[in-house]
Amino acid sequence: MSYQMVVSMLNVLFLCRDYKLMNMNSSGDEEKLGNGVVGILAESVNKWERRTPLTPSHCARLLHGGKDRTGVSRIVVQPSGKRIHHDALYEDVGCEISDDLSDCGLILGIKQPKLEMILPERAYAFFSHTHKAQEENMPLLDKILSERVTLYDYELIVGDHGRRLLAFGKYAGRAGLVDFLHGLGKRYLSLGYSTPFLSLGSSYMYSSLAAAKAAVISIGEEIASQGLPSGICPLVFVFTGTGNVSLGAQEMFKLLPHTFVEPSQLPELFLKDNGISQNGKSTKRVHQVYGCIITSQDMVEHQDPSKSFDKADYYAHPEHYNPVFHEKIAPYTSVLVNCMYWEKKFPRLLSTKQIQDLSAKGCPLVGICDITCDIGGSIEFVNRATSIDSPFFRFDPAKNSYCHDMDGDGVICMAVDILPTEFAKEASQHFGDILSEFVGSLASMTEAADLPGHLKRACISYKGELTPLYEYIPRMRKSDPQYALLP
Amino acid sequence: MSYQMVVSMLNVLFLCRDYKLMNMNSSGDEEKLGNGVVGILAESVNKWERRTPLTPSHCARLLHGGKDRTGVSRIVVQPSGKRIHHDALYEDVGCEISDDLSDCGLILGIKQPKLEMILPERAYAFFSHTHKAQEENMPLLDKILSERVTLYDYELIVGDHGRRLLAFGKYAGRAGLVDFLHGLGKRYLSLGYSTPFLSLGSSYMYSSLAAAKAAVISIGEEIASQGLPSGICPLVFVFTGTGNVSLGAQEMFKLLPHTFVEPSQLPELFLKDNGISQNGKSTKRVHQVYGCIITSQDMVEHQDPSKSFDKADYYAHPEHYNPVFHEKIAPYTSVLVNCMYWEKKFPRLLSTKQIQDLSAKGCPLVGICDITCDIGGSIEFVNRATSIDSPFFRFDPAKNSYCHDMDGDGVICMAVDILPTEFAKEASQHFGDILSEFVGSLASMTEAADLPGHLKRACISYKGELTPLYEYIPRMRKSDPQYALLP
Repeated sequence: MSYQMVVSMLNVLFLCRDYKLMNMNSSGDEEKLGNGVVGILAESVNKWERRTPLTPSHCARLLHGGKDRTGVSRIVVQPSGKRIHHDALYEDVGCEISDDLSDCGLILGIKQPKLEMILPERAYAFFSHTHKAQEENMPLLDKILSERVTLYDYELIVGDHGRRLLAFGKYAGRAGLVDFLHGLGKRYLSLGYSTPFLSLGSSYMYSSLAAAKAAVISIGEEIASQGLPSGICPLVFVFTGTGNVSLGAQEMFKLLPHTFVEPSQLPELFLKDNGISQNGKSTKRVHQVYGCIITSQDMVEHQDPSKSFDKADYYAHPEHYNPVFHEKIAPYTSVLVNCMYWEKKFPRLLSTKQIQDLSAKGCPLVGICDITCDIGGSIEFVNRATSIDSPFFRFDPAKNSYCHDMDGDGVICMAVDILPTEFAKEASQHFGDILSEFVGSLASMTEAADLPGHLKRACISYKGELTPLYEYIPRMRKSDPQYALLP
Repeated sequence: MSYQMVVSMLNVLFLCRDYKLMNMNSSGDEEKLGNGVVGILAESVNKWERRTPLTPSHCARLLHGGKDRTGVSRIVVQPSGKRIHHDALYEDVGCEISDDLSDCGLILGIKQPKLEMILPERAYAFFSHTHKAQEENMPLLDKILSERVTLYDYELIVGDHGRRLLAFGKYAGRAGLVDFLHGLGKRYLSLGYSTPFLSLGSSYMYSSLAAAKAAVISIGEEIASQGLPSGICPLVFVFTGTGNVSLGAQEMFKLLPHTFVEPSQLPELFLKDNGISQNGKSTKRVHQVYGCIITSQDMVEHQDPSKSFDKADYYAHPEHYNPVFHEKIAPYTSVLVNCMYWEKKFPRLLSTKQIQDLSAKGCPLVGICDITCDIGGSIEFVNRATSIDSPFFRFDPAKNSYCHDMDGDGVICMAVDILPTEFAKEASQHFGDILSEFVGSLASMTEAADLPGHLKRACISYKGELTPLYEYIPRMRKSDPQYALLP
């Protein structure tokens, strides 16, 4: 061995030692943050959670690109029997399968890990539902801070134009509409009507989004050829909102033979002589459904009749507006597909009193598909979330009662809060396509300041300290979170 | 008008008058029995009943053939929103749609009408479930007798070789297996396993048997390509019985990648070194399921070890045989598909004590698909029927408890008693194909003695009198029907 070689080796050894020293944390352990080793959690919050933040093909690209290019050197996947892509597929592309994520500097989940599994001084990314100081998740935030964890929240990764970059809204809309149509078939059967909707399953019963679409198209063909009983027609779906959730729901609805009408045209559908008005005795069939998209201008009107609707004014002074949905839209609505954002400062879309009055007078409302799952929100009587196992409850306005069957009076309501997992394969693909663009930055991050803006803004905690954008959370926790205003 | 013509007309008039007189009943009303006017009931027993005894195409053939050839002059169909073929389709082929069946001499249903709707002195045909003096249906029989009704029971239409001619067994088997696979997917998810079974709906969620088969084939392809988690394998389906119910269930099962094994080969599947034994830690996948068909010789053995199984002897002296299913088959069974006929004189297939012992020792049994729906019968703990709405219960042997969720310990059980209606279209087609061969005889029958043998034997009541074959029913009602022996 030459002197030169010995010097080189010593240099390398010193460098390694320095590197090691540089990478020691406060406890004297090796620093993991920014080490390029990524962990993927086994999801534990909900048994239906089959989504994954990165699919095997995303992992393959990150690993095979090399750490220099992708920022990722290893990926350790916690084994899971229910993840939509099974462990062997991750193993095949070079991921390690292990419950032990202690080597990982960055740990990804869809939802949070069990509190006792949170490793100190790592970075985590998941939907934490903590930034509104949500009471049920404050133990999670406390744990994160006490373990000096860095936390990124996907919900807060927002582009320069204020749009969320990582979201499942469209999948919620798609899955929600299919699930509702399935329930609608059962409800109509309880009411004595066999309809093509009965030949549809819930979204998760299809192996792909394409298969679910094919099934909706197939019942659409049955509606076109065999028609619907006139006793349940015109069958009018009203969609609130125009965001991704609404677009996803409309995408599935449009696979049925349909006509969209303007809100002002709704009463016409119910005229007796137009051939589609409700008449239980007739053997006539109706060969399509109707859709109507409404926005805030269809839900309220200014208290001053001389003033027309102005969106900016409404958002600034909702107290100057009266609700009109129950008079102008609800009396013509069979199915209300709720996809809109709502806050307590706005009038409710439909109060319990309003549906009681409508129901006493007789109205065609069969069900509420509350994809927003806004409990006690815009639709007052939707006071509980439901599960994929048992997605419906029935609300009887006359008795103000809630039941789990489909067999009595009232309206059926669906309010599932984990809809996108029903299309776990496509939702994971979509999510990972975007997340894998960010993973390199997150996995190699050692200084929050070095992160690109959209990721920096999504960092709630850096090494156990709330970042400046989120310092409001402790103050918010002290006040009643129900009435706290967001910054 | 010639003299000849007048005489002819008078003759016709006299004939008509004589005919009218001949067709007066005891109350002086016009006799309906044998008048060739057929009624089809709106089914009212179960909201899921969408089957019909005759489809529109059967009606078309009966009506268009002419009364002389088919024995049917008119068909009156009670309107129903949930019959699989809607009213307009019957109307299109010349049926009359009316709630009023009083013109009809023969009235057909799948199940019985509401008691108060039974018209006097007509003939009815439906599944009456009265010939074993079933307690719950004795009010129906009393009503039939008091209204001087003629009653044919489809279940009793038996060919010369003792085989039932009108039955839905194969459809029960088909629907039952699909429904069970759907539930199996949910159960495995609760146990932490995502499986292709989750991508399958219940039978009624497919618009046709063909569509359901396509869906089973599709999950079969996923099992073949992606495999099943080794933790739930070998996945063994054991079928009891070899009749139509079992054949229907096997037909659907065979759409999955499968191997049938002999009962004696079951233990081999569980040998540790054969690559398919259960191992929760492995990422290995298993690409098929296993089937095993068992008959009585696999369920019992003679008390005298020197004697081998003899079916005739077993049926004559079941008390000489000990049950062995729990030792020889159950320890290797994942899913027990029960399709066999059983009577109390035979040992049970699986007693509650046996499953408790098996479960304490650890056994792979995940669920019972009791297509026979033999309550408290061959599988002792199946003590309740379930509905299509909520087809499963969970039995926890350790706690001897019954629950409605999929989430705890124990085995899931399905015991739906109206399975064939899930394939209402095909089941009705199959049924009507055979029934329409008999309708002519039944619709024109005025004397029971004139009926062909297989229909005569199915006639429980003739004009309100029990026919000789069924005179035992009142005697049976007096004894405990549970222990009554059938003639």
